[in-house]
Amino acid sequence: MKNEPSFYRPRAALDLLASIERDARERGRAMRESLDRIDEAEPQVRAMTALAPRDAALSAADSATGPLAGLAVAVKDIFDTSEFATSYGSPIYAQHRPGCDAAIVTMLRRLGGVVIGKTVTCEFAYMAPTVTRNPCDLGRTPGGSSSGSAAAVAAGFAPFAIGTQTGGSTIRPASFCGIAGYKPTFGMLPTAGMKCFSWSIDTVGLFAATVRDAAYFGAALSGRELAVSGAHALEAPVFGVPEDYPWTAPTDNANAVLETAIRAIERAGGRIRRVRFAPWMARMIAAHDTIQSYEAYRTLGFEYDRHRAALTPMLAAFLERAGTIGTARYVDALAALQHARERLPGWFDGITALLTPGAPDEAPDGLESTGDPAFNRNWTLLGVPCVNVPGLLGARGAPLGVQVIGRHGDDARCLAAAAFVERAIAAASGRAFAT
Amino acid sequence: MKNEPSFYRPRAALDLLASIERDARERGRAMRESLDRIDEAEPQVRAMTALAPRDAALSAADSATGPLAGLAVAVKDIFDTSEFATSYGSPIYAQHRPGCDAAIVTMLRRLGGVVIGKTVTCEFAYMAPTVTRNPCDLGRTPGGSSSGSAAAVAAGFAPFAIGTQTGGSTIRPASFCGIAGYKPTFGMLPTAGMKCFSWSIDTVGLFAATVRDAAYFGAALSGRELAVSGAHALEAPVFGVPEDYPWTAPTDNANAVLETAIRAIERAGGRIRRVRFAPWMARMIAAHDTIQSYEAYRTLGFEYDRHRAALTPMLAAFLERAGTIGTARYVDALAALQHARERLPGWFDGITALLTPGAPDEAPDGLESTGDPAFNRNWTLLGVPCVNVPGLLGARGAPLGVQVIGRHGDDARCLAAAAFVERAIAAASGRAFAT
Repeated sequence: MKNEPSFYRPRAALDLLASIERDARERGRAMRESLDRIDEAEPQVRAMTALAPRDAALSAADSATGPLAGLAVAVKDIFDTSEFATSYGSPIYAQHRPGCDAAIVTMLRRLGGVVIGKTVTCEFAYMAPTVTRNPCDLGRTPGGSSSGSAAAVAAGFAPFAIGTQTGGSTIRPASFCGIAGYKPTFGMLPTAGMKCFSWSIDTVGLFAATVRDAAYFGAALSGRELAVSGAHALEAPVFGVPEDYPWTAPTDNANAVLETAIRAIERAGGRIRRVRFAPWMARMIAAHDTIQSYEAYRTLGFEYDRHRAALTPMLAAFLERAGTIGTARYVDALAALQHARERLPGWFDGITALLTPGAPDEAPDGLESTGDPAFNRNWTLLGVPCVNVPGLLGARGAPLGVQVIGRHGDDARCLAAAAFVERAIAAASGRAFAT
Repeated sequence: MKNEPSFYRPRAALDLLASIERDARERGRAMRESLDRIDEAEPQVRAMTALAPRDAALSAADSATGPLAGLAVAVKDIFDTSEFATSYGSPIYAQHRPGCDAAIVTMLRRLGGVVIGKTVTCEFAYMAPTVTRNPCDLGRTPGGSSSGSAAAVAAGFAPFAIGTQTGGSTIRPASFCGIAGYKPTFGMLPTAGMKCFSWSIDTVGLFAATVRDAAYFGAALSGRELAVSGAHALEAPVFGVPEDYPWTAPTDNANAVLETAIRAIERAGGRIRRVRFAPWMARMIAAHDTIQSYEAYRTLGFEYDRHRAALTPMLAAFLERAGTIGTARYVDALAALQHARERLPGWFDGITALLTPGAPDEAPDGLESTGDPAFNRNWTLLGVPCVNVPGLLGARGAPLGVQVIGRHGDDARCLAAAAFVERAIAAASGRAFAT
């Protein structure tokens, strides 16, 4: 066991909501805490591209009603907002001010959330490094492409944040920043008003301090019953743990964290079943690359054809390669995906959820890379719900999450399983962060 | 048999392309024909919201390369274009000029198509009447919501046009205007950069004078082999014809046209099998309404919440009702849809394609309504390919199409079956238009 980590620990949204439930004036206090944390840490963290004026944010919080009760929400700058410049992480759109809000932004406002600002995204939600630093270790990346949204929650700027995931853009930064990340089943939340990368895969992602917070946030946005207490709490879930992976192998560091989680799960009454991936799962790696590339060459075609010099060399090279992918290969990849989607439910028989590392390692040092999405891409392509469970640290002292993956459309069970893991980790360590 | 119709008959795109193949200078002639037709008929038809300057269009046509060979393409004003104002049929966006092009616009340009202008759409692609008149009868609606795109092709303004379909917005106006309409399998062409109405249903639609033209256009855009001659021509297709419909009954007028098509098909060597819909098909009517409404309340939430007075009473009332639909009903509708999607392939066993009227009747008189999408909505929801086959006239003298519906993902076979019907109708009448 290590000592309590030295980095900032964000307050749980459900605790804030309980305070507000007792006294509505707490809405203003919660918003002031967010604004003060931004004043304090944003100069180092650099998570935000635009901020609501302090007075406007406080006033909106005071008058808010609904399940989000005036809490601050940070929104990835890949979604259109009428009240903030929206640049999609690209100088091409440096001055861009959309004429309307993305659907998810409207939904936040209707629920009483206060959009406190926009957050740094990798250029068009791809992989180019960003300026944002990991609040848990300013010398490291927070991951990407939802860099700013993950960092904003980890730094206490906002109890909730909106991101996206086309590869590993929600789960990976959540793992690196020691917070909960939740990628819902494909299509559950609308991407309308998001700058599209891949129409078959783009998914809205949610961030919060804890799994229970993320489930509450997802329940509010989707209107579904996703709360993880009461009837939804699981007694003895069975977690499938892969014996090996057809993609990047986890580091010893990640394996050690996973084993810590497994011991905690077993101590809490959960069970572990070792599982093997079928050959069709390995084919999803290439299928993801083909589908994402083929579609991005078209969705980002305007930028590639008209503003190529304003793209990073990384994205320009990706799109150049993407342009060589023929439709036959794309159609084959879609067929392989269809085949895998049909087999996946049967593969889940006998397990409540799958358990893997959230990323192959802790956040890498430096800001030159946003890390490896290998542990996330297949699940994004398959459209199944995924949750990063925080609470554990790697050997180098930074967070490293475990990922819970559920059945297509059964987000409630996936979140309940992730909440079980979160509670098990806390119980085993006597505190939230432990190795 | 009636006399040849008096209205304008657009030239087939494949004929124009054959001329261009023989002599590249024909590109300029084809574009001049488009521009001249616009000068001549647009004051009456009112299909266009924005037009490319004549010199720019001619110059672009002259220098174009690729399968669209400099032919004019008209684009529904629901897609973002950087070079034309984009108003989505709403005064809220009267001055809106997007920062980039929709993916489908980029794809058109890369293929050598020349975007000649934007076309009138119903407000946000819903149902409110438009100013556009049916080129076949100026006293009637061309249908909607892709009113201008259908009218532009029928009037000879452009050999190709882009529309969308969320209910019946491509097939119905194609039926009313006597041209081919093709709604591909869901997800085949990207809606990125389209103003979203319903993220589970919105589909790009294509218009051209003939089915063969539409197949060529779809093949160029999708990169798939959809050409309907050679290996793809069908010898003896079997068409399933429903004994009755769980939605709006076809008029005697539509039934007579369908019987004419059936006789032509049988004479050409095709076969007819009477089929009955399963009960799950009837449930798709309510499911479509629920899913479309629930999603539109969110995607058009910014406009509803912030600019309600600028919406038509029709759309405002629709969204008000949409806001009362709870998530439980939406989730039930999605489950019913999933059930139906799983059963549909088996239901298609033994038939090549389904054959129905394209709309319950000819275009209604006047511009007060864009007509009834009842024959189209279920297929949009199910995501299967549909083609309106032109060539027949109703008893009141205006076009009335027959609709060919194929298996999910098998657009090639659906288009080949539609081309079979088109040829059969032409052969039976000795000319393209007949009853």
